[in-house]
Amino acid sequence: MFVNRLSKCYNKCMPKIVDHGERKHHIAEAAWRVIQEKGMKGATVRNIAKEAGLSLGALRHYFSTQDELLDFAMSLVKERVTDRVRFIIESDLPPKDKALSILLELVPVDEQKMAEMEVWFAFTFHAKYMKQDTDTQDDGILKGMHRLLEFLDGNGLLRRDLDQEVEVERLYALVNGLALHALLESRRLHPERIVQVLTRHLDSICVK
Amino acid sequence: MFVNRLSKCYNKCMPKIVDHGERKHHIAEAAWRVIQEKGMKGATVRNIAKEAGLSLGALRHYFSTQDELLDFAMSLVKERVTDRVRFIIESDLPPKDKALSILLELVPVDEQKMAEMEVWFAFTFHAKYMKQDTDTQDDGILKGMHRLLEFLDGNGLLRRDLDQEVEVERLYALVNGLALHALLESRRLHPERIVQVLTRHLDSICVK
Repeated sequence: MFVNRLSKCYNKCMPKIVDHGERKHHIAEAAWRVIQEKGMKGATVRNIAKEAGLSLGALRHYFSTQDELLDFAMSLVKERVTDRVRFIIESDLPPKDKALSILLELVPVDEQKMAEMEVWFAFTFHAKYMKQDTDTQDDGILKGMHRLLEFLDGNGLLRRDLDQEVEVERLYALVNGLALHALLESRRLHPERIVQVLTRHLDSICVK
Repeated sequence: MFVNRLSKCYNKCMPKIVDHGERKHHIAEAAWRVIQEKGMKGATVRNIAKEAGLSLGALRHYFSTQDELLDFAMSLVKERVTDRVRFIIESDLPPKDKALSILLELVPVDEQKMAEMEVWFAFTFHAKYMKQDTDTQDDGILKGMHRLLEFLDGNGLLRRDLDQEVEVERLYALVNGLALHALLESRRLHPERIVQVLTRHLDSICVK
């Protein structure tokens, strides 16, 4: 009887996905929705299973702990951002527009990016306060800022009088600071202002 | 017997403080130590009472909920930063050095500021994820950045070709981004580099 009810619910709630990787994606996306709605405190394996339309047992088949599930959701965020950045790099935008577009992928200026940032933020917070990591996991953004300045330099756009190490750190702090404010002060800080700030910053480090 | 033991422990652990405000400070400082050691998850009223050398009942006399206690610890952080900034403003440093010193009060470059930043960070994340605030409490830093640029402008130091609103937002993001990195990547990002970045930024917005 119980199995019957479960199976009905399963058929109702879940699209028929058989692929293991696809199912993991489906679960990670459910995890994202739960984090956004209930915060990290509510992101229990139980709530995520419910949101994904799965039994707790079925979910544990894919992720045995909450940490594993969050790690996976976070790795999905990184993957998506990386894909979008690669797409921009391969586009035929002028170099400085490419740089601006890449920076805008790292700051939440639309709903999808806001969701990703929520996961990033929750993940970082979780690592810092729940797992007591001293230094949190590298999200690759610092390295990305290095490459961005090298890219501008390679295209003859970066001013010659700058200390590149200092500029990398400054850009890295600016981007994460903007991302933090976009998330925590979303009613105040609008996407247009973020674009203005990043444009102004790029202008200030590029040759005229 | 229990009362006796409690009283012995109390006498052993606690300095004789009778002033209500002073006792609250003592408790808030204990809360800071617990947050730093155990993270927000461990910042329970019980742990804080233990750290402060108080019974749970005695602590509840001062703070009836965990939220009240954290609000108080956070208001203490604001008070201390404000006091230090006021001290700098009233000093006889040249205006640009004053500006740099003020910015360095907002980024953790020593152990005391790191502790304050831990509280700020935990408090902000707690508000966002545990209390589900959409926009977190204003910590006054944005307003401070406004005043700082006005101060530079009033002393004839700010470049005339800048959009002040954009510059305020840029400086605000830079400062909080640096603070975030100083906290989360303390092994990588050293105080000297923070000073370099802020000096470089001030130079870039000031007249030569």
